[in-house]
Amino acid sequence: MADSTTPCPSPSGPSAGRSWWGWGAVDKALSEAECTALGQLLPGAADTPLPVPDISALALPKVRVEPPSALAPLMSTAPGDRASHTYGKAYRDVIRALRGDLTAAPDQVARPRSERHVVDILDWAADAGVAVVPYGAGSSVVGGVEYRADAHRGVVSLDLSALDRVLEIDRVSRAARIQAGVLGPALEDQLRPHGLTLRHFPQSFEFSTLGGWLATRAGGHYATLYTHVDDLVESLRVVTPVGVNESMRLPGSGAGPSPDRLFLGSEGTLGVITEAWMRLQERPRHKASATVLFEDVHTAMEAVRAIAQSGLHPANCRLLDPGEAGLAGVARNGESVLVLGVESAHFPVDGRLAELVALARDHGGSPASAEPGAADGAADTWRSAFLRMPYLRDALVRMSVVTETFETACTWDRAPELYETVRGRLAEVVKDVTGAAGTINCRFTHVYPDGPAPYFTVIAPGRRGSEVAMWDEIKSAAMDILHDLGATVTHHHAVGRDHRPGYDRQRPEPFALALRATKRALDPAGILNPGVLIEPATAG
Amino acid sequence: MADSTTPCPSPSGPSAGRSWWGWGAVDKALSEAECTALGQLLPGAADTPLPVPDISALALPKVRVEPPSALAPLMSTAPGDRASHTYGKAYRDVIRALRGDLTAAPDQVARPRSERHVVDILDWAADAGVAVVPYGAGSSVVGGVEYRADAHRGVVSLDLSALDRVLEIDRVSRAARIQAGVLGPALEDQLRPHGLTLRHFPQSFEFSTLGGWLATRAGGHYATLYTHVDDLVESLRVVTPVGVNESMRLPGSGAGPSPDRLFLGSEGTLGVITEAWMRLQERPRHKASATVLFEDVHTAMEAVRAIAQSGLHPANCRLLDPGEAGLAGVARNGESVLVLGVESAHFPVDGRLAELVALARDHGGSPASAEPGAADGAADTWRSAFLRMPYLRDALVRMSVVTETFETACTWDRAPELYETVRGRLAEVVKDVTGAAGTINCRFTHVYPDGPAPYFTVIAPGRRGSEVAMWDEIKSAAMDILHDLGATVTHHHAVGRDHRPGYDRQRPEPFALALRATKRALDPAGILNPGVLIEPATAG
Repeated sequence: MADSTTPCPSPSGPSAGRSWWGWGAVDKALSEAECTALGQLLPGAADTPLPVPDISALALPKVRVEPPSALAPLMSTAPGDRASHTYGKAYRDVIRALRGDLTAAPDQVARPRSERHVVDILDWAADAGVAVVPYGAGSSVVGGVEYRADAHRGVVSLDLSALDRVLEIDRVSRAARIQAGVLGPALEDQLRPHGLTLRHFPQSFEFSTLGGWLATRAGGHYATLYTHVDDLVESLRVVTPVGVNESMRLPGSGAGPSPDRLFLGSEGTLGVITEAWMRLQERPRHKASATVLFEDVHTAMEAVRAIAQSGLHPANCRLLDPGEAGLAGVARNGESVLVLGVESAHFPVDGRLAELVALARDHGGSPASAEPGAADGAADTWRSAFLRMPYLRDALVRMSVVTETFETACTWDRAPELYETVRGRLAEVVKDVTGAAGTINCRFTHVYPDGPAPYFTVIAPGRRGSEVAMWDEIKSAAMDILHDLGATVTHHHAVGRDHRPGYDRQRPEPFALALRATKRALDPAGILNPGVLIEPATAG
Repeated sequence: MADSTTPCPSPSGPSAGRSWWGWGAVDKALSEAECTALGQLLPGAADTPLPVPDISALALPKVRVEPPSALAPLMSTAPGDRASHTYGKAYRDVIRALRGDLTAAPDQVARPRSERHVVDILDWAADAGVAVVPYGAGSSVVGGVEYRADAHRGVVSLDLSALDRVLEIDRVSRAARIQAGVLGPALEDQLRPHGLTLRHFPQSFEFSTLGGWLATRAGGHYATLYTHVDDLVESLRVVTPVGVNESMRLPGSGAGPSPDRLFLGSEGTLGVITEAWMRLQERPRHKASATVLFEDVHTAMEAVRAIAQSGLHPANCRLLDPGEAGLAGVARNGESVLVLGVESAHFPVDGRLAELVALARDHGGSPASAEPGAADGAADTWRSAFLRMPYLRDALVRMSVVTETFETACTWDRAPELYETVRGRLAEVVKDVTGAAGTINCRFTHVYPDGPAPYFTVIAPGRRGSEVAMWDEIKSAAMDILHDLGATVTHHHAVGRDHRPGYDRQRPEPFALALRATKRALDPAGILNPGVLIEPATAG
């Protein structure tokens, strides 16, 4: 009963108009004047922005490997391609790109246009001892797409953005077979005519791909219930060096350990995800949102816990602490702000929202509007600030401000201590490292019945030339603090290379043995994204 | 903030009053006269029940291995222990036990009282080349606890029922640390004083353990949303032959592939689950249920699909086809019956139930009562029939009736064809094998937005002495049919040994390589539940 769809044509090249060094679209970056003005708001920032280097002036390392002629049409050594595929978009990536440091550039950027191309590229790479770094749209903030080893004859960045089609839609089961390289907006464009949506909107939505979400267990739109993309997966198709792994399309199964759960979160180390059958939603017709203010952040946390444990499952339930709310412009007097949202394709949701707001009020909150669900300025303000944040971050980087985020999750019994300890201990570290008090804000991006996912933002003035070292010292301390508190090193940013110290400590040792054994079985030549999750295997 | 609890004492020995050959409690089994009367209802059944053999008269194989003296106090070779740990409770298990065939009996039954004991037993077994079959309460219906190979010096059944305590409760996060060997009722008894519940009620609830549920990805109370026990897991503690695997207690994480998901569904092949932190619920204060009748089963399926896709998440949403509804006594005129239930610890649920009933009515259903939520006889009737079924099954077995169930899951686009094809093709097979038309009923036990989990019951007269061969032929055909239709070999009964032919076909080959590599890494001597999920490794 599945009916095929006519795929939408891609409007333009896969990365047209995209910044090679910073976030997103070139035309949305802040101007020199805006950067300077922003810097003036922050004591200790530089007076003038770091210049953006011209690609033609960059020193790229020599290309060490050439593909066989059959694959040559898929490959590029153009400086713009190599430069834009060197790093992800972490703070330490952006600052190094601005510094013109491209020693880690891949030798080749491959753009397969079919699964067959992916197979052929992996076959060649395994034979030739060439590392392959799968690349969706490069929004990793954990060093997930940057080759850092020295154990391979060369490195290919495998850019999957040409695999950008919705191949099949099953309206009855509400699911679609989708190629992994599709960007968020192009995916939704192809689903919209069918009245369907994946409704997975990570902050990186415009500049990340389905395959990237799956490989990194991305966190999306839903603050409760369906938080990670994992739960939206019906089946996966993964090209491994030893064969294609295709799981059955099933709504649920108990046949052995889940095959899909091995590849979800494998971050390109075990195979390249080329397609997935994804569970879809009908587009919501009923939406309502409200904001609730709290004078005390701990009271707010208790209210959020009550909501998370109520079974009401709000689509949005984001708590901004006073600093975060102030920065986003949704609170003026040091309040914490809870943004609530409910949605349904079938039923009016005002009653549900009223129940949520009542619960928040019972726990000490003050609704921002007397009439929940009415036009809610704060929710809109916050949303637009949310999408603007990465561009502001880049501007701050240019003004030599150390600015980065990290996220975690812990059980509720530890949440208040986590909030206070991270802010307290990390503020000391920030002061030691930068000489300034800095700002450490927090929001809860997702909440579960048994705990929240706190997301921290750090902002402090940096010293030109020392930015990476300064951030690395702060990040290292943050990982120590999270580990001490029994919190995960990442809730939805993945492990990559930057989180290895924290991940290695928290991963149970028998599971590490299992992962290494699996890596040897599926990638015997050790070519797939070496250094991510597990020790780089030796090149074949 | 986690506060320790005083564990409840176990009321009696772990298996006191339990049937060694059939389901559940000895005193709930049907009498000889009841068996005979039941047989008379079914054309082709025997005239008199098969006798239940006396344990003292059974021929048990010679004990081949003895534990070291330090472990001897934990071990038993008592005939009752060995007999009761030979099989699970599948049809083919019960009939073989009734026939007195105990050639597969374990040499020793071990009852560790601590995790240290589990470690010591595994260490000894790995050195001695002795197979270890983890055993919760033995309710497997897929050959999960029966050693069938011939590659080990002996076999120990590792009965975990003495590890039966709730060790710690975190009320704030609503979670508890629980030993794996606890039976369902004893677990709920220990949680009840705290106002909490795991609310995981598989049909085997009284005679299965937390560890068994986790190792087999059991399906529980909730018909939607939280169907498998997987989603209730915060962290696991697993003794593997190479060390203890303890995952962090987290509400959610994106740090690499989930370690817990490797052990969930591993069925004792990779390690022995000794403890888990489980997510709990507050006990529901508001409950409402309703039944809706449908004249046509396909109309009923469409209504269930609409409900599963509505986002209303009923706790109960079980569809009985005409045969199943007739057998359970909840429909008299060939209707299909939908049993709906809603529950909440916090909010009245009548409105939600009304929405569900309205949706069912919009899709062609007739509510059984004018007032949904009112005392609902059909739901209660069905529930008590549901719990009585395994005892009736045993009585039918004694009357030489071939009677067994199997379950699956598929996407909605395939569900109508699956329903018709299984009933059509399997009826032919049943007729070929048994010479009688037989009965093939179906219910949906769990439903997802993208598909149902259909559960089939087969009843047909058998020939004394050929029962196992007859059922195996029917089961083999059922696995073929499910595979042809793209449905899973099991939704929540696990793979064990009986489902290997279907599982081996549906498991992607690279994942099989990963599983084998993991097995070699974690169980290098190949002692853990050999033959389940993957090829038995050679004994060390």
